[in-house]
Amino acid sequence: MRELSNNEVKYINKLYLAKYRKEEKKFIVEGKHLILEAKNAGVLLECYTTDSSFDGTLISEESMRKVCKTNTTVNALGICKLFEAHKLTDKILALDAIQDPGNLGTLMRSAKAFGFDTILLGRGTVDIYNDKVIRSSQGAIFKLNFINDEIKEFMHDHPEYEYYGTDVKTGSEAEAIKPSKRFAIILGNEGNGMQEGLKTLTKANIYIPLINTESLNVSVAGSILMYLYK
Amino acid sequence: MRELSNNEVKYINKLYLAKYRKEEKKFIVEGKHLILEAKNAGVLLECYTTDSSFDGTLISEESMRKVCKTNTTVNALGICKLFEAHKLTDKILALDAIQDPGNLGTLMRSAKAFGFDTILLGRGTVDIYNDKVIRSSQGAIFKLNFINDEIKEFMHDHPEYEYYGTDVKTGSEAEAIKPSKRFAIILGNEGNGMQEGLKTLTKANIYIPLINTESLNVSVAGSILMYLYK
Repeated sequence: MRELSNNEVKYINKLYLAKYRKEEKKFIVEGKHLILEAKNAGVLLECYTTDSSFDGTLISEESMRKVCKTNTTVNALGICKLFEAHKLTDKILALDAIQDPGNLGTLMRSAKAFGFDTILLGRGTVDIYNDKVIRSSQGAIFKLNFINDEIKEFMHDHPEYEYYGTDVKTGSEAEAIKPSKRFAIILGNEGNGMQEGLKTLTKANIYIPLINTESLNVSVAGSILMYLYK
Repeated sequence: MRELSNNEVKYINKLYLAKYRKEEKKFIVEGKHLILEAKNAGVLLECYTTDSSFDGTLISEESMRKVCKTNTTVNALGICKLFEAHKLTDKILALDAIQDPGNLGTLMRSAKAFGFDTILLGRGTVDIYNDKVIRSSQGAIFKLNFINDEIKEFMHDHPEYEYYGTDVKTGSEAEAIKPSKRFAIILGNEGNGMQEGLKTLTKANIYIPLINTESLNVSVAGSILMYLYK
């Protein structure tokens, strides 16, 4: 067992910031469960642990406390390399500036569960390597394909897909829509919805009928649509 | 405009703790939108604001900073009385130890949207007056009927309802279920699911078919079921 050096502590803590993750091309996962998922996905580079039965560099609990972010101290911390984009899948979930880490993680979990294996991350969407995103994805993040692109440009470059927007006011009812084999659902920002400019480019804009309420949480609305079109 | 006294600051801050809310039978809402919802619901007792155009006691921004909990300073803070239970509605959402405030708030929002107007709060469920619950409910909390009871006792006292549990392993497929007019859906704890003891008391236990994944976020799963049985 050893102590982490000050430089190691500093280096790991920097990886909690989006800017340094991008520079270093690395991100952090906490807890054995997520580390095993990262290992299976082939992105785990290093592992520090306080548990001698777990595979990794054994460090002291004091050292662990200096580098883990969750309140309850974890017994393992992994450093991973960023994901590479893979081949597009038939079903795509496109996110237009989803800002809440919990919403993004929850959407990943549902996307995996309903077969939307590619996620298009439009501009303004929260960093997928954010620790809260990873935690709320419950490991789904390691099983998805991520594309970073402007949604409008992606639509232009990929006319082989059908695109469905979401619009609480002037849309088509969700159950009336029958998507073809290759399609994308576009979800909008928590406060402002989908950019106006995309609405005329989609095949249809969808809404979910609600009783005396304006809207659902975006991760709920997106999950209901993915469930319907699974 | 006036400053809040030290006693007032202390009193308001105590209301962020469940224990004092229960003692004082009061809770806090932040922001004009929620305060107006509270007023419409007839539970608003007092309002403090830094905005002279808003109805309430005008206080300084410094005073407001001492009593508001959200990071971005709000311009209005309301003190409300706790809700009273009303007549049971036909559709009930029963919560068996839902612990995450964001999940509870999101479920309230979906329950309102899909006509599940009574929420049965089983033992171990997070306090509905928690500030994060109120924020993520987006005002839906003021339009619902809450019952505090052991789920098992409620089931015993209300045999006029059909009860549907949730069970990822041995359940019936969601779309095969056709509930009658009066029914309750029971959602289980984030980590452990529904108590084993309830499973034999329900008419059926429901699961949502998933691809290569164990489970959905509970607020997503509950919302999909409420959508299907709306």
